[in-house]
Amino acid sequence: MVSITRKAEFSASHYCANPRLSAAQNEALYGKASSPSGHGHNYVLEVTVTGETDPLHGMVMNLKDLKEIMNEEVVEVYDHRFLNHEVAPFDRIVPTAENIAQDIWRRLEPRLNANGRRLRSIRLYETPDLFVDYSGEPREAGVAA
Amino acid sequence: MVSITRKAEFSASHYCANPRLSAAQNEALYGKASSPSGHGHNYVLEVTVTGETDPLHGMVMNLKDLKEIMNEEVVEVYDHRFLNHEVAPFDRIVPTAENIAQDIWRRLEPRLNANGRRLRSIRLYETPDLFVDYSGEPREAGVAA
Amino acid sequence: MVSITRKAEFSASHYCANPRLSAAQNEALYGKASSPSGHGHNYVLEVTVTGETDPLHGMVMNLKDLKEIMNEEVVEVYDHRFLNHEVAPFDRIVPTAENIAQDIWRRLEPRLNANGRRLRSIRLYETPDLFVDYSGEPREAGVAA
Amino acid sequence: MVSITRKAEFSASHYCANPRLSAAQNEALYGKASSPSGHGHNYVLEVTVTGETDPLHGMVMNLKDLKEIMNEEVVEVYDHRFLNHEVAPFDRIVPTAENIAQDIWRRLEPRLNANGRRLRSIRLYETPDLFVDYSGEPREAGVAA
Amino acid sequence: MVSITRKAEFSASHYCANPRLSAAQNEALYGKASSPSGHGHNYVLEVTVTGETDPLHGMVMNLKDLKEIMNEEVVEVYDHRFLNHEVAPFDRIVPTAENIAQDIWRRLEPRLNANGRRLRSIRLYETPDLFVDYSGEPREAGVAA
Amino acid sequence: MVSITRKAEFSASHYCANPRLSAAQNEALYGKASSPSGHGHNYVLEVTVTGETDPLHGMVMNLKDLKEIMNEEVVEVYDHRFLNHEVAPFDRIVPTAENIAQDIWRRLEPRLNANGRRLRSIRLYETPDLFVDYSGEPREAGVAA
Repeated sequence: MVSITRKAEFSASHYCANPRLSAAQNEALYGKASSPSGHGHNYVLEVTVTGETDPLHGMVMNLKDLKEIMNEEVVEVYDHRFLNHEVAPFDRIVPTAENIAQDIWRRLEPRLNANGRRLRSIRLYETPDLFVDYSGEPREAGVAA
Repeated sequence: MVSITRKAEFSASHYCANPRLSAAQNEALYGKASSPSGHGHNYVLEVTVTGETDPLHGMVMNLKDLKEIMNEEVVEVYDHRFLNHEVAPFDRIVPTAENIAQDIWRRLEPRLNANGRRLRSIRLYETPDLFVDYSGEPREAGVAA
Repeated sequence: MVSITRKAEFSASHYCANPRLSAAQNEALYGKASSPSGHGHNYVLEVTVTGETDPLHGMVMNLKDLKEIMNEEVVEVYDHRFLNHEVAPFDRIVPTAENIAQDIWRRLEPRLNANGRRLRSIRLYETPDLFVDYSGEPREAGVAA
Repeated sequence: MVSITRKAEFSASHYCANPRLSAAQNEALYGKASSPSGHGHNYVLEVTVTGETDPLHGMVMNLKDLKEIMNEEVVEVYDHRFLNHEVAPFDRIVPTAENIAQDIWRRLEPRLNANGRRLRSIRLYETPDLFVDYSGEPREAGVAA
Repeated sequence: MVSITRKAEFSASHYCANPRLSAAQNEALYGKASSPSGHGHNYVLEVTVTGETDPLHGMVMNLKDLKEIMNEEVVEVYDHRFLNHEVAPFDRIVPTAENIAQDIWRRLEPRLNANGRRLRSIRLYETPDLFVDYSGEPREAGVAA
Repeated sequence: MVSITRKAEFSASHYCANPRLSAAQNEALYGKASSPSGHGHNYVLEVTVTGETDPLHGMVMNLKDLKEIMNEEVVEVYDHRFLNHEVAPFDRIVPTAENIAQDIWRRLEPRLNANGRRLRSIRLYETPDLFVDYSGEPREAGVAA
């Protein structure tokens, strides 16, 4: 088994606040990131697909296909958006790096698991000094009831 | 003359649209960046100060002072803000990288020009692939009348 | 399970020599790094914590807490120190990247393992071209008897 | 168990085409990368060795030995070469990043697995935005019969 | 005056040899880089344009235009090519980083000097550790008579 | 005129204190960096040489020569040293980044100014977030009388 990882970038804004909590509670949890005006990041995404190297073409999967799927499912959805207002499920879920990574997993997995290969992990950098890794089952966290 | 450069980061959102233009005209100019919901970046700022090396301490200027001035004049003002709505003059001026760099120059120059040293240039990265350099007189561009 | 990783930096000096060995033996093992005057690095540390995403706040752990714990347990202890002379156990243990990573693990694990989350791994860059990963039980290596 | 990773770089050219396929089929698979004139990359290699920290010297393996083995087995073989024409088995196998990583594994494993330590994984960057991870059994893929 | 810089990448192969010199002389000059089979790089190009900030849109020049011009004049010409064989003038001129930077200048300058702005400089990275800056008049160097 | 820049790295320790000042005064100036035990950095050096592109070989200067001069004059002198104790003039001069850059200039200029080319500038990174540029006359600063 070999894994191939491709990077992509998108620029988006967000803020972190659970609507079930007060403004003071949200500020205690998230600091300045709780301000509803929002702030933004150049998110860097790494998508890792694992599988056998195809004996015909010597790749785990075609790189042009991988790039196209990442563009369609993630970059075109997230790029230049205010996540809380423009990208579901972040109208209901706090767009922390953890929750964004899980949402990206849900979007990519059905497109990438095929022909013996599978999506192995997602790494999402919110800043160069902070990143999240996710590989697993979808779940919803931070949902306001 | 020696120059010393210190980096700092701030995360902010913005959008690019001149209120004197129509939405279609703004989209033609700025593409997706014109959406008023906004999007964001991890801005990286490099501030360069030039002067003689002080014979007492061997520095162009004290590094702790430089860091403190950059925090007070830029990071605390810009970080975790929606520039168009929360940071003047971007209620009136399009917050392009060019205009942000010039605003940062205006904020820093009076604090840094002292004791024979002077602010030499500002470099502002909007993304790792796009940056602006500014060193000069303040001016206002992209102002909506 | 999701993992979150935060980076921190510290600048320290060290040298690599086992006092049970002769100077010639140490030089054969470590080259120029065995010189007792010491040399230094900008160490970059990545701390990875894994757990469930909290349904209230959507994070594996609060980022401000993680930053504070890393500062208290690592940065304030190691930064701007000569490790062999100023930071235990490196009076007794050779401060190789391997041993430093294990010491950092010992310092962080009791603070980070709580509320269902746990410290998963430590990555320590000695230079941009050399790094160590550690995730496991504490042990002492390279101790001079 | 601790792991140590060392980086190295080599500059090489390659093209991607399976001689069993037509030029049109190869272009459909690989795009511009199928042009037989070739193009090139600054490949970045990360080699990870895992083992116990030696109680004498506090290292998983001697860093000078690791550097020397990487130079002898990889850099001197690959650097400044046109892989398809000058480095076996790429006269027979398409030099995709997947296949190169597996070839590097085959070259390094016999030299690195010794004294209780073992080669754990190879990461090969073809560009800063695309990399492959391999850790396992040698195999041959994309061979033209 | 403000300057804006945009990065682009292209992957190409080349070798360095002046046909007026013998193979031994070329190897003495360029080392392994003189092998006619060629080797390759991920070249990183930075193009800097300087001018007044336009009072209407707050930019030195439209970023989409800059990207398109760089793609048309450089990336589509150089990317995935063997420079000595496929890109003039490198059939006659040694494709050193110095000469490539000057050729890029010649291609870009007529498209970028307009409306009061001008191409100020080209930076070309051949590897992360080696780059060339050029800003000036076109000239031809290393031409074989 | 074209400029070529080559990077090199060295790991060294230092501390910043002027012996004419008290420990308290030095700490007020330099903070933790004034501790005489020292601390260290992975210094990154960029050396820029400018000149005409040679019509024979298409380079400003031979890259192997540049690398060799940088190794002889800087890396072999500074690497794995405690600058205050092992490298003159830092027994007398505070090894701030400003003063180190000027010392490197003094060492390199006589070797690099030849055949119409000249050393144009030195950039020295003390950390990824702090660097110094120098291009000019040698001088001595921060000397204790």
